[in-house]
Amino acid sequence: MFTVSTEKAAYHHGNLRDALVRTALSLLEESGVEALTLRAAARGAGVSAMAPYRHFADKADLLAAVAEQGYADLRDRLARADTAADPRQALVEQGVAYVLFALERPALFRIMFGASLGSGLPPKPPPTAGSAYGILAARVAGLVPEEKREAAVVAAWSLVHGLACLTVDGRLTPQADAASPETLARQVTGLFAAGLPA
Amino acid sequence: MFTVSTEKAAYHHGNLRDALVRTALSLLEESGVEALTLRAAARGAGVSAMAPYRHFADKADLLAAVAEQGYADLRDRLARADTAADPRQALVEQGVAYVLFALERPALFRIMFGASLGSGLPPKPPPTAGSAYGILAARVAGLVPEEKREAAVVAAWSLVHGLACLTVDGRLTPQADAASPETLARQVTGLFAAGLPA
Repeated sequence: MFTVSTEKAAYHHGNLRDALVRTALSLLEESGVEALTLRAAARGAGVSAMAPYRHFADKADLLAAVAEQGYADLRDRLARADTAADPRQALVEQGVAYVLFALERPALFRIMFGASLGSGLPPKPPPTAGSAYGILAARVAGLVPEEKREAAVVAAWSLVHGLACLTVDGRLTPQADAASPETLARQVTGLFAAGLPA
Repeated sequence: MFTVSTEKAAYHHGNLRDALVRTALSLLEESGVEALTLRAAARGAGVSAMAPYRHFADKADLLAAVAEQGYADLRDRLARADTAADPRQALVEQGVAYVLFALERPALFRIMFGASLGSGLPPKPPPTAGSAYGILAARVAGLVPEEKREAAVVAAWSLVHGLACLTVDGRLTPQADAASPETLARQVTGLFAAGLPA
């Protein structure tokens, strides 16, 4: 183990990286993606302006790390929601959790999935069993006959992703907007889950 | 009628505005939203650099007009797709058309629905009967009992919007990506349409 010394604080190597990502996540929701710079992250973490360059080449590199943490947080959120005994209900709760994640952390959600980085989107997470995608796919796979699984997983993801985007960006109609986002998400995913081919 | 004279071309009042929006739509898909400026639109339309200011205060104002034209084009596209005799099939064709619209004109789609403008999204179109939303909603309303209509319309829109976003942004898994976007869109919306409560 070695220690990075800076003017104001000292971090072990991995800790500084974690501290910068945590700080970036807070700055993001407080001030938006434009205000998030390596310098601002350094200031927030209490280290010198040059210290972030030990871990991140530039802002895009920091945003990729932020997106990676976002994927992990979304995965944890879906896993925690996926507890109902009835598998259709578990799918509904996953969908509600997905939409609420986007609403609670819109700037992070846009970085994970949107075109916030211009042409450079963050690398997408591998669709492994342990990812957010894997948790959603496993639940759908248990409900749907094999030949329809691929389409059903894409449909389930599209449904919750589309609802999250339309809600976050304020695109829904006034009538739909009048319901609480959680109620609307529950109705929409409930209707979808009930219609899945058995 | 009066005529706007510029160095290089002369347009009637409304024609210059239309010409600038048409030029902006081309520039957008060729060079991206960053390259689209009032100056570039003027150059493309063959008028002086100052001429666009007769119609647009700034770039955001031009982008709002571009989005408005996009809503109209999407509405026309959905209306043309909505011709199948079987109402479920008509809904599927609308969904496919929505996804293909996004794929063919990704920069326009992002301006219409994304956060391309930073905090300033273009005004959303009114959810009237003649809008893209209205065409989709009418088709769903004919399929679903009244008490489930609102949720079903939001679900249908979320489904195709989410699939469009995930496809345009390259977020789907390699397996799903292997299918042609049209085939995948047809499978996904077909599965959804078949599951709607009758």
